Amino acid sequence: METHIEKLATLFARFPGIGERQAKRFVYFLLRQDNGYIDALAREIAELRSKVSQCTECFVFFEAVNGQALCSVCSKRDLDQGVMMVVEKDADYEVIKRTRVFGGRVFVLGGLAPAILKDVDAYIRIRELRSAVERRTGKGGLQEIILALSLTTLGIQTDEYIRRVFADLVDAGTLRITSLGRGLSTGTEIEYSDKETIVHALSGRK
Amino acid sequence: METHIEKLATLFARFPGIGERQAKRFVYFLLRQDNGYIDALAREIAELRSKVSQCTECFVFFEAVNGQALCSVCSKRDLDQGVMMVVEKDADYEVIKRTRVFGGRVFVLGGLAPAILKDVDAYIRIRELRSAVERRTGKGGLQEIILALSLTTLGIQTDEYIRRVFADLVDAGTLRITSLGRGLSTGTEIEYSDKETIVHALSGRK
Amino acid sequence: METHIEKLATLFARFPGIGERQAKRFVYFLLRQDNGYIDALAREIAELRSKVSQCTECFVFFEAVNGQALCSVCSKRDLDQGVMMVVEKDADYEVIKRTRVFGGRVFVLGGLAPAILKDVDAYIRIRELRSAVERRTGKGGLQEIILALSLTTLGIQTDEYIRRVFADLVDAGTLRITSLGRGLSTGTEIEYSDKETIVHALSGRK
Amino acid sequence: METHIEKLATLFARFPGIGERQAKRFVYFLLRQDNGYIDALAREIAELRSKVSQCTECFVFFEAVNGQALCSVCSKRDLDQGVMMVVEKDADYEVIKRTRVFGGRVFVLGGLAPAILKDVDAYIRIRELRSAVERRTGKGGLQEIILALSLTTLGIQTDEYIRRVFADLVDAGTLRITSLGRGLSTGTEIEYSDKETIVHALSGRK
Repeated sequence: METHIEKLATLFARFPGIGERQAKRFVYFLLRQDNGYIDALAREIAELRSKVSQCTECFVFFEAVNGQALCSVCSKRDLDQGVMMVVEKDADYEVIKRTRVFGGRVFVLGGLAPAILKDVDAYIRIRELRSAVERRTGKGGLQEIILALSLTTLGIQTDEYIRRVFADLVDAGTLRITSLGRGLSTGTEIEYSDKETIVHALSGRK
Repeated sequence: METHIEKLATLFARFPGIGERQAKRFVYFLLRQDNGYIDALAREIAELRSKVSQCTECFVFFEAVNGQALCSVCSKRDLDQGVMMVVEKDADYEVIKRTRVFGGRVFVLGGLAPAILKDVDAYIRIRELRSAVERRTGKGGLQEIILALSLTTLGIQTDEYIRRVFADLVDAGTLRITSLGRGLSTGTEIEYSDKETIVHALSGRK
Repeated sequence: METHIEKLATLFARFPGIGERQAKRFVYFLLRQDNGYIDALAREIAELRSKVSQCTECFVFFEAVNGQALCSVCSKRDLDQGVMMVVEKDADYEVIKRTRVFGGRVFVLGGLAPAILKDVDAYIRIRELRSAVERRTGKGGLQEIILALSLTTLGIQTDEYIRRVFADLVDAGTLRITSLGRGLSTGTEIEYSDKETIVHALSGRK
Repeated sequence: METHIEKLATLFARFPGIGERQAKRFVYFLLRQDNGYIDALAREIAELRSKVSQCTECFVFFEAVNGQALCSVCSKRDLDQGVMMVVEKDADYEVIKRTRVFGGRVFVLGGLAPAILKDVDAYIRIRELRSAVERRTGKGGLQEIILALSLTTLGIQTDEYIRRVFADLVDAGTLRITSLGRGLSTGTEIEYSDKETIVHALSGRK
């Protein structure tokens, strides 16, 4: 029979990046904490979903103060309506927000799309993205979507997939699709750079 | 004002080995899980302390089925009464148990004792250890305590501290104190071994 | 008295990235090799400097077949005379060459210039660079220098230093100075990107 | 055609732990050094073999001052004749020597013996070891060999192999074979210890 210690360790072991051993350490850690901390933790976890909403426009998680359906960005009056940035997940969105240089909409895809995946739309919000774009293009509306995806194999495949999805709008001149620029990133040493990065850095010199 | 996402992330950031960034990822991970998982996690955390007891003899955490005060080891009939192993924490105890070669009592110290610490007894169970040993030494009783502490600076200081605490009983011939043997551990390469390890391995050759 | 083993180990310990321990391993490795290998190694090291020339134009090391003073790039007939790329060292130059997308001159600086350094020109080829640039600007000649330096603190300081050195030519409209473009490099994940990289990637999107 | 730079890099790439890239860096490093260093390096490499002898008894490398055949240990008058330590290589021998607690002979095996190897004796000095042992056992002579091999898979296999080689002498009571003791080595944490190490540490407690 599984003990409570094991049961909780098994639940923690599903946390991202946490193995069985560290999961067990979490349980022993909790056993040594005072009731105030334990209670707060259990309560915040239990209430998280009811306290946190998902924006119906951009799918970012946010905390609705008065039950509003839109996050603070989507409900901004002076939002730049011409451009929408597509990101993989909330954590990426936060990195973008912290730079304070982007004034447009964002759209959280909810994952990346491996090229081999049959039914991409079942895993990430491609249909919702398409619908959000269609709703907003047109006179005075959305003109460009910026794909801000990680430069990993999966990120690149997803970038290509989304470009195919919107090929018709692009061909029709209704929409422009751009991707974050490539080049040297902070800390990059020339000696250890790959060819792709150098080629992009060279053509993007300034 | 701190949001619920931030509040929960702050609580997770106190978990051992978890930084702010990973704490935030835990929260986003939970936001994507179904209610069944969330509820189970919150419930197990809330109930952990009431479901798990601490053995009044050896201080190990265990799950009392019928409200008993002693863990399965301390309540064993054929327990080797002559020897008690002192470990730092529950996780160390589990490693020892898994070897299945030790048949005596165990005592969980609850931490290690830095040499600079003024009031060691306030942090780890030295008083409780002393009392447990005194209760058990004597005819047919406890004859040896084995210090099974990590071979780190803190572990070595704690080993020395405990030896001083029991110096009177050792001098009186009532108690023997041993420490886990030193030598090559699995994977050790001679070329990268320190002097101490070689000296112990040499004198402990067989 | 230092033995020959120690003497050679001390010499190897000056190799880049080699500590005392590995230096000693190199010596023991050599002691186990056959005479053919040992002789070839000693000979190639002794003759290296006489067999390898340094291009009088770009300062790259190369092997002159018939005693020529210019490397294969500097002596190319169809060399793009309008652009010169400045790199820190030969290894960086090789990475650039391997991409096969740059058709202009190169100039090997021979190091980077820490901002705190008093007499930068004594350490890296700033004077030689200035002279090479002056010799080549003018009608039909050099119009742009591309700074292809690592995006490290030292690389950035050197980039800024060179821009100051040529500020007069740039102000006079005689020369353009560019630096390799910044952005996401291969493998970069958005979540772990710094602000600078995101800002550049955003403005350089395409 | 291979250039001299490539030729030397290829030679350096055979050094232990050195890849192609670092080999190339070594060459560029040498190109920047003064003649004094280059000449000393080439000369020491060329003369290494003639300056360094291999002890005809223990096979350790040493520097003969007056053409003697024995190393400083093997020619010691007060050498403990009763015990011989078998090590894999010179670097291991140095680690042992630095502890200053062993007063007997040493024997350098010259490698380890994978269990799958058909003709072990062609690779490491098993025959030489057997002969050295036979020459020395007997009244007032060698009584014990200590196997001081790394606690890796290969080291353990070699330990077992040597024990088989000398099984007859051990059975006859002429020789004792011991191996370095196992247990916690400096820095070992109980929580991350394997079963084998714990079991040995427990039985070797003191």
